[in-house]
Amino acid sequence: HFAARCEKRPTNRSAEVLGTLSPMTLKTVRVLAALSIVLFTASARAEEGMWLPNAMPTEALRKAYGFSATTEWTEHMQKSAVRFSTGGSGSVVSADGLVMTNHHVGSDLLAKLSTPSSDLLITGFHAKTRADELPCPDLELNILWEIVDVTTRVHAAADGLTDNAAAGAAKRKAIAEIEAESNAAQKASATNLTSEVVTLYQGGKYHLYRMKTYRDVRLVFAPETSIAFFGGDADNFEFPRFDLDCCFFRIYEEGKPLVSPHYLAWSTNGAQENELVFTWGHPGSTNRLYTADHIAFMRDVEEPAGLKRLWRGEVKLTTFMGRSAENARIAREDFFGTQNSRKASQGLLDALQDPALLAAKRAEEAALLATIKGSAVEAQFETGRALIRASLMAAIAFGPDYYALERRFRAGDLAHHARTLVRLNAENLKSNADRLPEYTDANRDSLEAELFSPAPIYRELEIERMTMYLSGLAEERGLDNGLVRKLLASKSPRARATELVDATTLQNVDARRALASMTSREIADSSDAMIQFVLAIDADARAARKHFEDEVESPQRIGYADIAAARFAALGDTVYPDATFTLRMSYGTVKGWTPAGGEPVGAFTTMGGTFDRAAARAGDPSFELPTSWINARTKIAAQTPFNLVSTNDIIGGNSGSPMVNAKGELVGLIFDGNLESLAGDVVYEISGNRAVAVDSRGLIEALKSVYGANALVAELTQRAPMVP
Amino acid sequence: HFAARCEKRPTNRSAEVLGTLSPMTLKTVRVLAALSIVLFTASARAEEGMWLPNAMPTEALRKAYGFSATTEWTEHMQKSAVRFSTGGSGSVVSADGLVMTNHHVGSDLLAKLSTPSSDLLITGFHAKTRADELPCPDLELNILWEIVDVTTRVHAAADGLTDNAAAGAAKRKAIAEIEAESNAAQKASATNLTSEVVTLYQGGKYHLYRMKTYRDVRLVFAPETSIAFFGGDADNFEFPRFDLDCCFFRIYEEGKPLVSPHYLAWSTNGAQENELVFTWGHPGSTNRLYTADHIAFMRDVEEPAGLKRLWRGEVKLTTFMGRSAENARIAREDFFGTQNSRKASQGLLDALQDPALLAAKRAEEAALLATIKGSAVEAQFETGRALIRASLMAAIAFGPDYYALERRFRAGDLAHHARTLVRLNAENLKSNADRLPEYTDANRDSLEAELFSPAPIYRELEIERMTMYLSGLAEERGLDNGLVRKLLASKSPRARATELVDATTLQNVDARRALASMTSREIADSSDAMIQFVLAIDADARAARKHFEDEVESPQRIGYADIAAARFAALGDTVYPDATFTLRMSYGTVKGWTPAGGEPVGAFTTMGGTFDRAAARAGDPSFELPTSWINARTKIAAQTPFNLVSTNDIIGGNSGSPMVNAKGELVGLIFDGNLESLAGDVVYEISGNRAVAVDSRGLIEALKSVYGANALVAELTQRAPMVP
Repeated sequence: HFAARCEKRPTNRSAEVLGTLSPMTLKTVRVLAALSIVLFTASARAEEGMWLPNAMPTEALRKAYGFSATTEWTEHMQKSAVRFSTGGSGSVVSADGLVMTNHHVGSDLLAKLSTPSSDLLITGFHAKTRADELPCPDLELNILWEIVDVTTRVHAAADGLTDNAAAGAAKRKAIAEIEAESNAAQKASATNLTSEVVTLYQGGKYHLYRMKTYRDVRLVFAPETSIAFFGGDADNFEFPRFDLDCCFFRIYEEGKPLVSPHYLAWSTNGAQENELVFTWGHPGSTNRLYTADHIAFMRDVEEPAGLKRLWRGEVKLTTFMGRSAENARIAREDFFGTQNSRKASQGLLDALQDPALLAAKRAEEAALLATIKGSAVEAQFETGRALIRASLMAAIAFGPDYYALERRFRAGDLAHHARTLVRLNAENLKSNADRLPEYTDANRDSLEAELFSPAPIYRELEIERMTMYLSGLAEERGLDNGLVRKLLASKSPRARATELVDATTLQNVDARRALASMTSREIADSSDAMIQFVLAIDADARAARKHFEDEVESPQRIGYADIAAARFAALGDTVYPDATFTLRMSYGTVKGWTPAGGEPVGAFTTMGGTFDRAAARAGDPSFELPTSWINARTKIAAQTPFNLVSTNDIIGGNSGSPMVNAKGELVGLIFDGNLESLAGDVVYEISGNRAVAVDSRGLIEALKSVYGANALVAELTQRAPMVP
Repeated sequence: HFAARCEKRPTNRSAEVLGTLSPMTLKTVRVLAALSIVLFTASARAEEGMWLPNAMPTEALRKAYGFSATTEWTEHMQKSAVRFSTGGSGSVVSADGLVMTNHHVGSDLLAKLSTPSSDLLITGFHAKTRADELPCPDLELNILWEIVDVTTRVHAAADGLTDNAAAGAAKRKAIAEIEAESNAAQKASATNLTSEVVTLYQGGKYHLYRMKTYRDVRLVFAPETSIAFFGGDADNFEFPRFDLDCCFFRIYEEGKPLVSPHYLAWSTNGAQENELVFTWGHPGSTNRLYTADHIAFMRDVEEPAGLKRLWRGEVKLTTFMGRSAENARIAREDFFGTQNSRKASQGLLDALQDPALLAAKRAEEAALLATIKGSAVEAQFETGRALIRASLMAAIAFGPDYYALERRFRAGDLAHHARTLVRLNAENLKSNADRLPEYTDANRDSLEAELFSPAPIYRELEIERMTMYLSGLAEERGLDNGLVRKLLASKSPRARATELVDATTLQNVDARRALASMTSREIADSSDAMIQFVLAIDADARAARKHFEDEVESPQRIGYADIAAARFAALGDTVYPDATFTLRMSYGTVKGWTPAGGEPVGAFTTMGGTFDRAAARAGDPSFELPTSWINARTKIAAQTPFNLVSTNDIIGGNSGSPMVNAKGELVGLIFDGNLESLAGDVVYEISGNRAVAVDSRGLIEALKSVYGANALVAELTQRAPMVP
């Protein structure tokens, strides 16, 4: 599954998984100190790259494929691509605002729209008429409309500041100001676009993105999980595959289906082997521009710590789900997400633990150093490298508190809402530019959509999540730790969690609305147990966040800006920025591969192959086909291509991305990568890295022959608008 | 599942899970330093206790129940009880050497006797005639025959030695001498008992056990795993239960079924609510006599570290098994064992993380201190406590290497055999008393039975285990760590594991036999990759073991011997020793309980309830009944008691223990405890702690009505010998 958790603000994934580090992982300090001084990364190889829509590799495309990426083509693709707040991608695929994405990108909504007696994840969903379409609670879709380069202004804000923390704060303030100015101007205009400054090249560039934002989104169609995720964890990130991993929504504007000239034409012919294809989507994060030091840190510290957390979560959720069918239903989304992250992280760590990988990174750095040796940017490069090294040491010191109290403060929805409420009014008292980013005016609509979401909150799952959070801290720090004592209040983790969940009213939307309009003083006097729990650690949490920003994130942005400057000097604009859950184009060709020590794998599977695979793995619940497919077996044209692979360079967050041909027609729906692609976080290797998609032909065949979704098929294929 | 991994030498479980500790868990040093000075544990409460056969609580039994534990009764029970080398208990239940235990104690053998086309774990097994009984590879059964107290001699060996390491070595040497002398005397006699010195009270007492040892053991009957482990992990350590967790073997002596006057009579009436019942079995390990410091160490260091390892193993094995049906078959035993340990460890940690537990332990210590205040043993007690505290600090320093290279050197069967071969001849050159304990003459038969076992070794599973081992070290220490570099030899963990497994001949028994007869020099020159792998770390491993013995284990034995002396002085012989996988008696009553915040749970379930439970959890594969049961549904007398609970004080290792009534008749087969019992590692609470057993009536009903095992039923119930 190539979904990414949505991070509203593109953040440095660098320390994503630091949360579970013990406070004293001194081994790493030693590792870092022992690293030899080596340098830095080269330009993109053939078919590698997650390219910005305003910095397309036009020359490379022309040279290698004779393909001309016109401005019109690019604009049409950009404005047909959709970002999902649930952490994935999608595209507009009809004149009536139909949006296609993956089932596993839509599954968060499917879970929220389900009840104990109607489980849409199991049964699937099909709105026969527009009136049957189901409004989705707290889903936000964005379409990128305009881009403005604001790098100079953001960098200038820190001019003359030698203190990294002060420089970082000045940049954050400048970003909030830019966003506020842009939003104010937009509100005055007819378009009313949402503004967001995105960080590129780890701080090397800043772009202001103006986006169309939609919150009236309705569910149109979803198949059963058993075919959407056929093969389960066993086949996740593998190929051959046989998955109908699709889900359809519709955007509404002022109560009517969206009307836009920008939507993708459907190719009923699909793509052929070796054909040039593109993806337009939102890769969540990569770290390919990291220094070798930073990659060693990922390998020896971050990823192992992250995997520990994921293994723990996976087993604990399995146990919870095993207790009853209802537990299984309410925790399924958390569980699949954990399992998916675990398989992705394991694949990445496997790649990192091959000594050849870091050796190659070091060689690339050496080559780059040779290029800039004696040039004006050599010293800047060295300064940047030193800053990164210092930031990694700081991450070891400041990471654990930051992750425990802020970044991985994952103690359930109730605790999450409580924190938002506790901070909301306190932040409102500050000027917009001084607020924590998630409380600025630019983010207020998104924040309120989430805070006042009518999505159900389940008592048993909330108790389980809070217990996992509290016992996790107790495991890391011991019960005599001051923070742990404060959180547990002399009770066991489960007893404390039960008490907190049973003495709050925050599961009630009206109660959250009432608290949101209170003053900080009134909130402080609240008798709500969850509010008091969050209040008790708020000062600690804010302090931990500030330490991490000042000592880790700010130095990294500055260091990587220095390094980026050196890279631009050496390589010009042939370098794409690391993924940041912003829109990117990748190009590649439909092509199988040969795994190390294995047999060649072809580029396509067929619909008929699905039944063979089910038969071969009979008895394994992950390979049980839904009744709808078993009944339709004879109706399905067995030779129809079902899934395919291509060399496109994608990663988590690209889930749901459209795969289009040179004419811009939709030929596939990206839903996964193969095992080899999991190294893509740090390196792209064309020999093994493959993107996995549902073929446009198989998708239509399933909608017709299995689901009788004729209206949907007609809407998708009604006409084939070319680039307007 | 109440099985324990067999530890041939009873060892201090104290640091069982230290292996995954990072080298620098300094938080714990701080935790320990901050612990207030508190003291130590009281005598047993009603129905608490795992009593030695030569130190029965006769007075307590007489007072509370009017029951007289005669010498004859005790001897008969002792000599009917069987210890399984697979880590569980059992009992002789017929005049023809039939031995009953749990399915999950026998499952290791069931797996070894299976092939891809005949999976006994799935199909079950039923030998219709004696000729059909299947000989078991490397299974060893022991029956305790004689006990000699050798405490004085072992303690005297260290007289005058002030250095803890030297004192520890002297005691180990004395133990080897005692065992060798005893074995020599036995070999000269007709009985030929096997001798083993067991450590009790963590070093407070040493007893020489002489045992009957059997290695010709054959499989007679096993049901399908789906009914033996009905409810799977979800219902493991829970009640109500509906499990036929039984397995029957037969002991052969010189080719004929064992003839012994000591076997248990079968009660076709079973036990009634509130009836006094006994278990005779082999609880694996408890830590109830630990100091409060030591329990805080378990809570904050050991158990969290152990769980991390178990979570990792469980997820990795799940992934491995998901790849194919054959993978699922060959890894199932490892998987269930890991899952079972995880659930047990989680239950224990949950109990430890309730602040009330350590508070109660501290109060008990304070009470004991008050008793001995001003007495001769007060200073001895304080000395012991200080030694324990120092040993815990040492465990943090020396644990990681010891666990990585010795105690948890779990890199697969091939690596295990390679180590045995590398050390065998080196140790043979030493005098018997100077050898590592597992290489003494007393253990040679067991060692060779394991080394030359014809049990299958699977390439894919071996690669997976070695990969797990190597990548685990890389995660803990980073790839630039010296030991990790030495082990990986510039390859990725999986590439290295594949290379090692493919360049060894140790999967072949004859190859192992040939290497076993080589000299150390010849072994050193071997071209076998696995031999060379093990040789390369042998000096490191031996050094790590010596450090841990000298700085952790020896001081703990000495410290706890001091503490035990104080306890005996204060409490006389009313204290039972912690469990050590040696034979123990527990007494209790058949009784339900009321879980905290829950409804009362009755003492019995019925066979008919099995079908209700299956219906209620339809769709969950763990609750799918085997065809044999579905077909027999109408034949089964639905009201027959199936499983039951009692207040008996048992723990992992007690699996398969007989439950007998006051007349010594078999009324149940212990197979589990409830969730509350998992705290039993450190504390017994009669309000919630329950043992779970198969009812003797349900067992017979299933054998008759489901399996038509009439000969087996006849053999079990043919006559009802009382205590001879």
